[in-house]
Amino acid sequence: MTGVDRDTVSVGEFEFECGESIDDLQIAYEAYGEFTGDNAVLVCHALTGSQHVADVDRSAWSRDDTGVDEADEDADSADSDEKNGDSATAGQARAWWNDVVGPGKAIDTSDYYVVCANVPGSCYGSSGPASDGPDGDPWGTDFPPVTVGDWTRAQRRLLDALGVGRLHAVVGGSVGGMNVLDWARRYPDDATRIVVVAAAARLDPQCLALDAVARRAITTDPDWNGGDYYGQPGPENGLALARQLGHVMYLSKSSMAQKFGRRSAGRDAHRETFPTDPAASFFPYRDVESYLDYNADNFVDRFDANSYLYLTRAMDDFDLREGYDSDADALAAFAGEALLLSFTADWHFTTEQSESLAEAFRASEIPVAHHVVDSDHGHDAFLVEPENVGPPVADFLADGVEGRAVTDTAVESDGGTDTEFAPVHSSLFSR
Amino acid sequence: MTGVDRDTVSVGEFEFECGESIDDLQIAYEAYGEFTGDNAVLVCHALTGSQHVADVDRSAWSRDDTGVDEADEDADSADSDEKNGDSATAGQARAWWNDVVGPGKAIDTSDYYVVCANVPGSCYGSSGPASDGPDGDPWGTDFPPVTVGDWTRAQRRLLDALGVGRLHAVVGGSVGGMNVLDWARRYPDDATRIVVVAAAARLDPQCLALDAVARRAITTDPDWNGGDYYGQPGPENGLALARQLGHVMYLSKSSMAQKFGRRSAGRDAHRETFPTDPAASFFPYRDVESYLDYNADNFVDRFDANSYLYLTRAMDDFDLREGYDSDADALAAFAGEALLLSFTADWHFTTEQSESLAEAFRASEIPVAHHVVDSDHGHDAFLVEPENVGPPVADFLADGVEGRAVTDTAVESDGGTDTEFAPVHSSLFSR
Repeated sequence: MTGVDRDTVSVGEFEFECGESIDDLQIAYEAYGEFTGDNAVLVCHALTGSQHVADVDRSAWSRDDTGVDEADEDADSADSDEKNGDSATAGQARAWWNDVVGPGKAIDTSDYYVVCANVPGSCYGSSGPASDGPDGDPWGTDFPPVTVGDWTRAQRRLLDALGVGRLHAVVGGSVGGMNVLDWARRYPDDATRIVVVAAAARLDPQCLALDAVARRAITTDPDWNGGDYYGQPGPENGLALARQLGHVMYLSKSSMAQKFGRRSAGRDAHRETFPTDPAASFFPYRDVESYLDYNADNFVDRFDANSYLYLTRAMDDFDLREGYDSDADALAAFAGEALLLSFTADWHFTTEQSESLAEAFRASEIPVAHHVVDSDHGHDAFLVEPENVGPPVADFLADGVEGRAVTDTAVESDGGTDTEFAPVHSSLFSR
Repeated sequence: MTGVDRDTVSVGEFEFECGESIDDLQIAYEAYGEFTGDNAVLVCHALTGSQHVADVDRSAWSRDDTGVDEADEDADSADSDEKNGDSATAGQARAWWNDVVGPGKAIDTSDYYVVCANVPGSCYGSSGPASDGPDGDPWGTDFPPVTVGDWTRAQRRLLDALGVGRLHAVVGGSVGGMNVLDWARRYPDDATRIVVVAAAARLDPQCLALDAVARRAITTDPDWNGGDYYGQPGPENGLALARQLGHVMYLSKSSMAQKFGRRSAGRDAHRETFPTDPAASFFPYRDVESYLDYNADNFVDRFDANSYLYLTRAMDDFDLREGYDSDADALAAFAGEALLLSFTADWHFTTEQSESLAEAFRASEIPVAHHVVDSDHGHDAFLVEPENVGPPVADFLADGVEGRAVTDTAVESDGGTDTEFAPVHSSLFSR
C-alpha cells in the first residue's frame, strides 16, 4: 500500500497513569507507506496537532484512491495556522508536516511506514473530553486526566494492533518531542533511532506560567460551564485567548518584527468578532492583532477547549527525570541513537534546553547529535523551515548520528560536558 | 517643607490629542522636598503605578506630619507586587520607588523637589474612566482616549500650577521612560537632564501582541459590559488575566527559574478563587501559578479595568519618531543630557532597544550615556535592584553623563554607531 490508511481503532480497556480507567480507548491514526517489518516510523504530533501529518493521497506521486474528505480535513491542522500561507493548499487546513513527510521527502513514505496517532485527550477522533462517554454524552471533564506517558502507552497499544513491534524511529516536535523522550525512557528497546525536535526534558516556569494563564482564560469564561458545554457555543472567548498566547509563544521577537512590525492592518473585520472599547477606534488595529484574532477565530472552530486544558496539563507535567535521579539516568537504558534539533530563536523550547538534554544523552553514553538551526522563526521553525529540518532528519533516519547533514554541538569538544554551541548568538531572544 | 505634599489640582479645560476635551482635568500628585527654583525633578510612573513614589513621611528622617492615610495607601502600588516582600512594609501596598527616592537616597528629596503625577486615564485620583464625568457618574469608556503626549502635557500644566518652570530632570521607568522621551521631544528646553529607565522609543510587536491579548481578556469578560460596570464587581476575571500576562512580561526566564522553578505551591488557597477543571487536582498547583494568581487577585482590588485598556493603548501607541523622520530627528532639539538604563534580562524593553535609542541621541550630538546593568531580573530589575539603579541615577543627576557611577556602551568606541555592549551575553532571554 502506497497511500494513506486513515482509521480509528479500539485498543480496549485502558488505565491512565492517574489510576482511572475507561472501557474502550479509541485511537485515531493515519499511516502512510508500506510496512516491511523494520521500517516503521512513529511521528508524534504537537499540542494541538493531529494524526494528519501528510497529504500523501493528494500528491501527484500517489495513485492511491482512498479519497480526501474535505470536511474532515478542515478539522485537522497543526500548531501553525498561516493567515497568508504560501503553499498550494493555503486557504484550507493543511497536513501539519507535509513538507517533511511524504514520498520523496525527508521522512520518505516510499521507504518508511509512517504512523501518527491522535493522542488521548485530544479531539481529532481519539478518546478525549469531547468524545462520547459511557452514557452516550461527551465525557467533558469526567474524562480521566492524561499524561504524556498515557500518550506513549496508547501509541504502543495502537502499534501492537497494527502488528508493529520494534520501530525504526520515533520522531516528534514540541510536546511531541517530549512524547519521543518518553518512548526512549519507557520502551528503551523499542526504537532504533529517536528524533526530538524543538523540545526539552521539561517546560520552564515561564512557559508553565503562560499555560496556566491560558487555562485560566478558558475556565473563567462563563461559557466553559465547568466543562459541560457540548452542544452549545462553549468558551470561545477563553479558548481564543489561550490560542493567542500560544501563538505568541511559537513566534520570536524577530519573526514578529519581520512579519508584522507596527503596521496597521488593512482591514478591521476581525476586530469586530469581539467587544472592544470605543477608544479603540482612535488607535490603529495592527497587523499583529489582526493576525492573532484571525487565527484565534479559526482555532476556536477546530479545537475543543477541554482538550486544550487536558493537553497543556500533560505538557506541563512532563519531566524526563521524574522517578529517576537525573535526565541521564532516565535515558540510560535507551539502546538506540538520538538526534536533537533546536532553533536559535525558539524561546518556548530553547537551544540551551536541548543542549542540556544532549549532555544527558552523552552522560549515559548514548550516541547523540544536537543539531542547532540558526533561525529567526522561533518555535514555529520546526514547521516552517522544512529546508532546515528535512536534511538532518533524513540523513539521521538513514545513517544515524553519522548522517551527512547531521551536525553536533559537541563536535569541537571532547564530547563531554564542556561543549560549544555553534552558532553562538549575542541574543537568542531579541533577534 | 521637607515632607510630602499630596494633593489633587484642577488644571482646567484640557484638550486631548484625539481632539476631545474635558472641562476640568484633575491631576493627583505627590511632591517631596523643598522647591528652590532649580531643583525640581519630575518622576514618571509606569503603567499601573501611581504618584506614590516614596514613603517619605514614614521615614525616621521626616518630621513632617501630614499623616498617612492607610486606606489611600492601600490603593497605591507599583508594577511589582511582591508576594513575599522583604521590606519593612511588606504586607501592605508600598511606594513604588521607595528604595530610590527619598531623603539620602539616589533621588535625594533633601536636595531635590520631586514631583510625581498620576497620569490622566489612570485611577489613582487623576481624571480617567473611573472618575466622575459631567453627569456625576463615572466616565467609563466615554472618557477621551489618552496618549503619552497627553500625560506630558498634563504634567506640564501641573508643574505650571506648582510654579515650576524648567526642570532639573525628568526621570521615568518603563512606559514612564516613554513619557520622559516625550518630554525631551515636546519640551526640549524644559529639562536639563533626562533619565530613561528600562524603556524604548516604541514597543515591539511581541509586546504589542501581548497587550492586545490582555485587552481582549478584559473586553470579552461579560462583566466588562462595554465599560459600564461601576458599582458592580466589574471584569475581575479579565483584569486578572491581563495582570498575569503583564507579570510574565516583567520577569525573565532566569528570574522565574530562580524564584519558582517547577515547585508545587505550599497551599492551594488561590486556586480556589476561580473555576478549574477537575483534572487539576491530579496535577500540582505550582508556585509560579500561585504567585500569579495571588498577585492578580490583589491587582484586581487596586486597579480599574478601563484604565488598563486606556493606559496600554497609550503605551502601544507611543512612537518617538512619529511626526519626524527618525528617532534622532525627534530628539534633535533637546538641549540637555540623557542617561539610559537597561537591564540585560529585560525582554519587555530590551538592551538592544536602549542601545538603538542611545544611537539616536548620539546621532543628534546630545550627550548620552547608556548604562547597561547585568541582571537576571527582567524588566522588574528597575524596581527591585535599587543598588544598581541608584548610583548611576544619583551621579547623573549631580554631574550628568560624566557622573562617576555612570557607564556608557560607547566608551570603547568612537562614540559613533559602531558600539560595543558591555557586558555581552550569549543569550539575553534564557538567562
